[in-house]
Amino acid sequence: MPRSAPPEPGTDHKGRHREILETAARLICEKGYEGASIQDIADACGMTKAGLYHHIRSKEHLLVEIMNYGMDVFEEQVLSQVLTIADPVERLRTCMEKNILLVTRGWSKEVTIILHEHATLTGEAKAQINARKKRYVRFLETSFAEAARGGRMRPVNPKVAAFAFLGMVLWIYKWFRPDGPVPEDALVREMEDLFFGGLEIVEPARSRRHDTPPAKTRRR
Amino acid sequence: MPRSAPPEPGTDHKGRHREILETAARLICEKGYEGASIQDIADACGMTKAGLYHHIRSKEHLLVEIMNYGMDVFEEQVLSQVLTIADPVERLRTCMEKNILLVTRGWSKEVTIILHEHATLTGEAKAQINARKKRYVRFLETSFAEAARGGRMRPVNPKVAAFAFLGMVLWIYKWFRPDGPVPEDALVREMEDLFFGGLEIVEPARSRRHDTPPAKTRRR
Repeated sequence: MPRSAPPEPGTDHKGRHREILETAARLICEKGYEGASIQDIADACGMTKAGLYHHIRSKEHLLVEIMNYGMDVFEEQVLSQVLTIADPVERLRTCMEKNILLVTRGWSKEVTIILHEHATLTGEAKAQINARKKRYVRFLETSFAEAARGGRMRPVNPKVAAFAFLGMVLWIYKWFRPDGPVPEDALVREMEDLFFGGLEIVEPARSRRHDTPPAKTRRR
Repeated sequence: MPRSAPPEPGTDHKGRHREILETAARLICEKGYEGASIQDIADACGMTKAGLYHHIRSKEHLLVEIMNYGMDVFEEQVLSQVLTIADPVERLRTCMEKNILLVTRGWSKEVTIILHEHATLTGEAKAQINARKKRYVRFLETSFAEAARGGRMRPVNPKVAAFAFLGMVLWIYKWFRPDGPVPEDALVREMEDLFFGGLEIVEPARSRRHDTPPAKTRRR
C-alpha cells in the first residue's frame, strides 16, 4: 500500500488495520481458521501477539472483521452503485458487471474465499454477516421478480435466478487469471450475454434504455 | 449405512472405508484440514489411531482419497452417462441435470465442499486431482464449441460458458435445502431453462432431438 503523502488523522491506523485483515485472510485461507494461530498471524504481520491484540479483540472477532470488510467493499462498489437504477434489467446487468470486476480486481482472493465459505462463526456474529449476505440475495430476487412482472424478462423463479447469477459471478475467483486467455472486458460481456441474452425482452416499442413506461420500472 | 444382508467379500471393508471418508470429510469441513487431527478423525470414526491407520496411509493421502472418491461418484453418475450423447446441446442439458442432482442428493455436503475448495494438496496428488477436474472443464468447453460450430447454439466463449455452467451448478450446495421452497425438479428445469433458453437454436427444419444432420453432431 504506497503512501506518498502524510496520512490523514486516523488513516495510518486504518491502513494498518486493513493490512492486518488482508494478512490474516491470507493465512486463514492457507491454514484454515483452526490451523492459523494468533501467533502465526502476528508473525506474518511482523508484530508481537501483544501488538496484534492492540488492533484486534479476539480471533473470532478478526474473522468477523474480515467478513465485514469484504461486505463493506462489496456494498460500496456494487450494491450502492446500482440500487437507484430504475429499470430492473439494467440494474441487474450493471450489478453483474460491477460484481464481476469486484471479484477480478476489487477483493483480494483471500477475502473472496473467506466471504464465500462456510466459516466457523456462531451466534450474533454469524447472524450479522448472514443478514448482510441475505440483503444482496433479496435485492437480486426482487429485481428479477420486478423484471418478469413488468414484461422486461421471461418469467423466472427469482430465487433460482438470483443464485444462478451469484454462482456464475462468485465462482470466477476459482478460475479467472488476469493474465489468462479471457480478458476482463470479454468476461463481463460474455457473462452478461450468457445470462441476460435469453431472458431479456426488448420490444421495438419499449426498448430497454429509453421507452420503458415509468409505471413498469418503478422500484417497490 | 444399513446392512441387512451378509456383505459380499470385500464389501464390508469397502463400506467401512467409505464411512471413514465421509466422517473425515465432515470433520475437515468443520475444523479445516489443519484443525482436524488424525486423533479427531479416529475418535469420530469410533476407532483408535492405529485402527484408522489400518485403513489410511496418511492424513494427506486421506484428503486425496476423499477427493478421488468424490470424483469417482461424479464420473460414474454424470460424465460417463452423457459422453456418448451425440447432440452437443442435449449432452450439455443432460449433463446439467445429472450434475445438479449429484449436488442435491448424490454427494454429501462435505465431499462437495472439499472437492470444490482449494485444498492443501501438493505435488503428484494435486496434479492428479486437478487433471480429473480439468477433464470435466474440457468436456464442457468442447461441447459448447461443438454446439456453436454446428449452429445449435449462439456463439459463446467456450471457456466462459463452461465456468458459468459450473458456477451455477456447483454453487447449489451453498443454498439449496431439500425441504426449502424450490423443489428439486423445479430447480433442474429452471436452471436448464435459464442457461440454455437463450442459447439454443432450434430451427423447425432441424429440431433438437430428431432431425439434426449426423455430420453436425458427430463427436470429435
